[in-house]
Amino acid sequence: MPSSFHTLTILAPGLLGASLGQAARARGLARSIRVWARRAEVRLACAQSDWCDSAHADAQEAAAGADLVVVCTPVEHIVPLAREVSPVCAEGAIITDVGSTKSRICREAAAVGGRAVFVGAHPMAGSEKSGMEHARADLFENRTCIVTPLPSTPPAPVDRVVRFWADLGMRVKTVSPEEHDEIVAHVSHLPHLLASILSVQLAGKDPEWMSCAGQGLRDTTRIAAGHAGLWRSICAQNREEILRAMEGFEEEWQRLRSALHNQRDFELERLLERGKRFRDSL
Amino acid sequence: MPSSFHTLTILAPGLLGASLGQAARARGLARSIRVWARRAEVRLACAQSDWCDSAHADAQEAAAGADLVVVCTPVEHIVPLAREVSPVCAEGAIITDVGSTKSRICREAAAVGGRAVFVGAHPMAGSEKSGMEHARADLFENRTCIVTPLPSTPPAPVDRVVRFWADLGMRVKTVSPEEHDEIVAHVSHLPHLLASILSVQLAGKDPEWMSCAGQGLRDTTRIAAGHAGLWRSICAQNREEILRAMEGFEEEWQRLRSALHNQRDFELERLLERGKRFRDSL
Repeated sequence: MPSSFHTLTILAPGLLGASLGQAARARGLARSIRVWARRAEVRLACAQSDWCDSAHADAQEAAAGADLVVVCTPVEHIVPLAREVSPVCAEGAIITDVGSTKSRICREAAAVGGRAVFVGAHPMAGSEKSGMEHARADLFENRTCIVTPLPSTPPAPVDRVVRFWADLGMRVKTVSPEEHDEIVAHVSHLPHLLASILSVQLAGKDPEWMSCAGQGLRDTTRIAAGHAGLWRSICAQNREEILRAMEGFEEEWQRLRSALHNQRDFELERLLERGKRFRDSL
Repeated sequence: MPSSFHTLTILAPGLLGASLGQAARARGLARSIRVWARRAEVRLACAQSDWCDSAHADAQEAAAGADLVVVCTPVEHIVPLAREVSPVCAEGAIITDVGSTKSRICREAAAVGGRAVFVGAHPMAGSEKSGMEHARADLFENRTCIVTPLPSTPPAPVDRVVRFWADLGMRVKTVSPEEHDEIVAHVSHLPHLLASILSVQLAGKDPEWMSCAGQGLRDTTRIAAGHAGLWRSICAQNREEILRAMEGFEEEWQRLRSALHNQRDFELERLLERGKRFRDSL
């Protein structure tokens, strides 16, 4: 028996928000699903879909009386939108989000006041594609969602948010916003930047070379196709943790470079072997 | 009408060599296919397969009278084996290989003497898996093969080697061994080392973190699962070009790090955008 909400409002239905709407409808998690979208063509597409009951040009109108609001905008807009809709939600409503960074968002959103409680979340789903045309009801299934309450967040709304994401088929993990940001700096943001910089370097080479590129390069760089503006915001919001993760990478990288440069080939092999064991265990 | 050889000898049938045997048989590229394998169980598996006519424990026995020999060993064994079999091949035979590095191999193999001509090749196929149990007849189809003649290599054997790989379904590109090594240092060896070192770094973190890892990390690190010993040899053979590629990477990496550290977020976005454009074009 899923935890059900009366009115779910999705702010900014892109890939994640529209997938969320489809999944919530398919699983019966809300009686009514409303969206707010800035662009008229997105509102039209939502209104014509079978998962959306109404599409609004005004965020307060979309969230009026809602008992669950999910903010699906780029990270820098999450807190301003939470501030805007919190006074018009149902009393005791929950606002959650899908942002890839959490410390700053959760700290600032806790202070917005209004009628709602903010409980941060980061569903680790999505892809290098963006836009609601790529949305699918099964996007969240068997993926991990990290829910990041503050010590001051009341337990009942945390439980409901945990249950909401679990009802979407996700494996839910609860950690502090700070730990979340440290983890994703390493397992998501750093890999993204490595893929991007490798791509930047290769962009400066003879395009003919790329006919020699195999599946390895394609896989290693796939995430570099992500939206640059979104990633600029993520980097800005998680700057310190990302810089720390970059430093950790550089230490190991210099160890490798030194082994290669000084012909300590078996030390190099041990490093590669350590990486292989990790990757095999993933 | 494929270019046909009388006797094809495959030295060391692992993933690439056994796939080559299957593909050559399927496409009728040789009347007889022989292998040399060090391990008795590999010889047995080959002898029981429908693509192999005889399996030998002695490389000279396997290559006696052959008009095409393909050396499929790790890179450091290619030249010694070419030296061993060249005196017993058919007069004017061709020896080619599948090694991931070319400058040193082609230079040294040109000097082995005997009855055969060496024409280096690097079929860009395979995967992080190794061993003949993963072999498939279509491994080479629509992949790129780089053939790397020296200025002194006679044109007729080069043409036959180009045609042989093309007959296996590959797109064949001819470049000098030196250019090959510069290209693969960038499009293959550098990505591999980045994936490995990212894996090494993450191996030192809380294993619980990995429940937060998404498909992005899996893709970015996939090639780190490659055989560490093979990659030690590749690194040793292409040391100078790899070190140069690493330096080029570090320059762009420091540009990113400086932009992030100094909050020049739009410079960072421009870098990411450049990487994205490259990846989108792949």
